[in-house]
Amino acid sequence: MSRADELKRMVRDVPDFPQPGIVFRDITPLLADRKTFGEVIDLMSIHWKGKGTTLVAAIEARGFIPGAAVAIRLDAGFIPIRKAGKLPWRVLSHTYQLEYGTDQLDVHQDALGPSDKVLIVDDVLATGGTAAAAVELVRKLGGQVIGVQVLIELSQLGGRKRLSGIEVVSELVY
Amino acid sequence: MSRADELKRMVRDVPDFPQPGIVFRDITPLLADRKTFGEVIDLMSIHWKGKGTTLVAAIEARGFIPGAAVAIRLDAGFIPIRKAGKLPWRVLSHTYQLEYGTDQLDVHQDALGPSDKVLIVDDVLATGGTAAAAVELVRKLGGQVIGVQVLIELSQLGGRKRLSGIEVVSELVY
Repeated sequence: MSRADELKRMVRDVPDFPQPGIVFRDITPLLADRKTFGEVIDLMSIHWKGKGTTLVAAIEARGFIPGAAVAIRLDAGFIPIRKAGKLPWRVLSHTYQLEYGTDQLDVHQDALGPSDKVLIVDDVLATGGTAAAAVELVRKLGGQVIGVQVLIELSQLGGRKRLSGIEVVSELVY
Repeated sequence: MSRADELKRMVRDVPDFPQPGIVFRDITPLLADRKTFGEVIDLMSIHWKGKGTTLVAAIEARGFIPGAAVAIRLDAGFIPIRKAGKLPWRVLSHTYQLEYGTDQLDVHQDALGPSDKVLIVDDVLATGGTAAAAVELVRKLGGQVIGVQVLIELSQLGGRKRLSGIEVVSELVY
C-alpha cells in the first residue's frame, strides 16, 4: 500500500454532509495525529521549496489550517482570503458562480503587490470555483500565482480544468 | 522601543468593526510579512517548548492561522474548535453566554483523550468567553489544558480572570 493510500485510510468519510448525497472527506483525524500532521504539511510544501514563494494565500476556514502551516514551512507570509464581510479593512471582492446562486471572496487591498509570488493553499479541490476566485483576486492585485496546493482532490469534479495554465498539486486524489 | 511595541505598530486599528464603537485590532499586516509572521509564531511557541504538548486546539476562523502554525513549530497535532454545525462528525458542544444571547462551540468527540496535553491558541483574548468554552470542551473529553496562548490580549476586558488557574501567555497587550 502506498503512503497516500495509508493517509487516505485516515480520512474519515462522512455521508450526507454538508448536504444529503454528499460524502464529506473529513481530514481532522490526519490533523490530530502529530506525526501525520507534520508529514502532511511537509508533503504539501516540498514541491514549492526554492521557488521563491513570498506569500501563501489560503481560503477560510478550513484552508487556513494547511495554509498557515505551509507558510511557516516555506518561510512565507500568510494572507487570508475570506467570505464577504469578514475582513475588517478595505477589500477587493470577487463574485463567482455556484451550482445554485453565487458566492463572494474578499482579500485586503494591500495584502500583496506585483513583487509577490503567491501559492494558493486549500484543504480540498472540488469544482475549482473557490480556487479560481482566489487566483483572480491575487492577479487583480498584481501578484504572480505560482500554483495551487491542496491536500485532497476530488478529480471527478473537474477542478483542474477550471485552473488551466496553473500548476495544481494534490496529495490525496479521489 | 521594545520589539512588542514595534509589532504593535504593525497592527492596524480599524474603527467600528465589526460593530460601531469597537476598534478592531487587525493582525493581517503582521501575517503578510514573511519575517514577522515567522517571528510571531516563534514568540507564540517558545514558552511551550519541552512541555509535552501533544495537541494545539484553535478556535475558528482566525485562531486557525496561529494555531496551525504553532502546532507545526511544537511538533504537535491540531484540532479545530468550530462554531455550531461546522464539524462533519459527532461533536461535543458547549454553549456559553455572550453580552447579548449565547454562542456555541463544537469539537469532535474523538478529537482528544486523557493522554493529551492541549495548548489552546487564539488570535485575541478579549472577555475570555470563547477561550473558557474551549477549555471546557478539552476537559470534558479528558484532556489536560496546559495553557492558553494568544497573540493579542485586550486586558481591560478581563479575559485572564475568567481563565483563573490556567497559564495564559500573550504577546501584545492593549
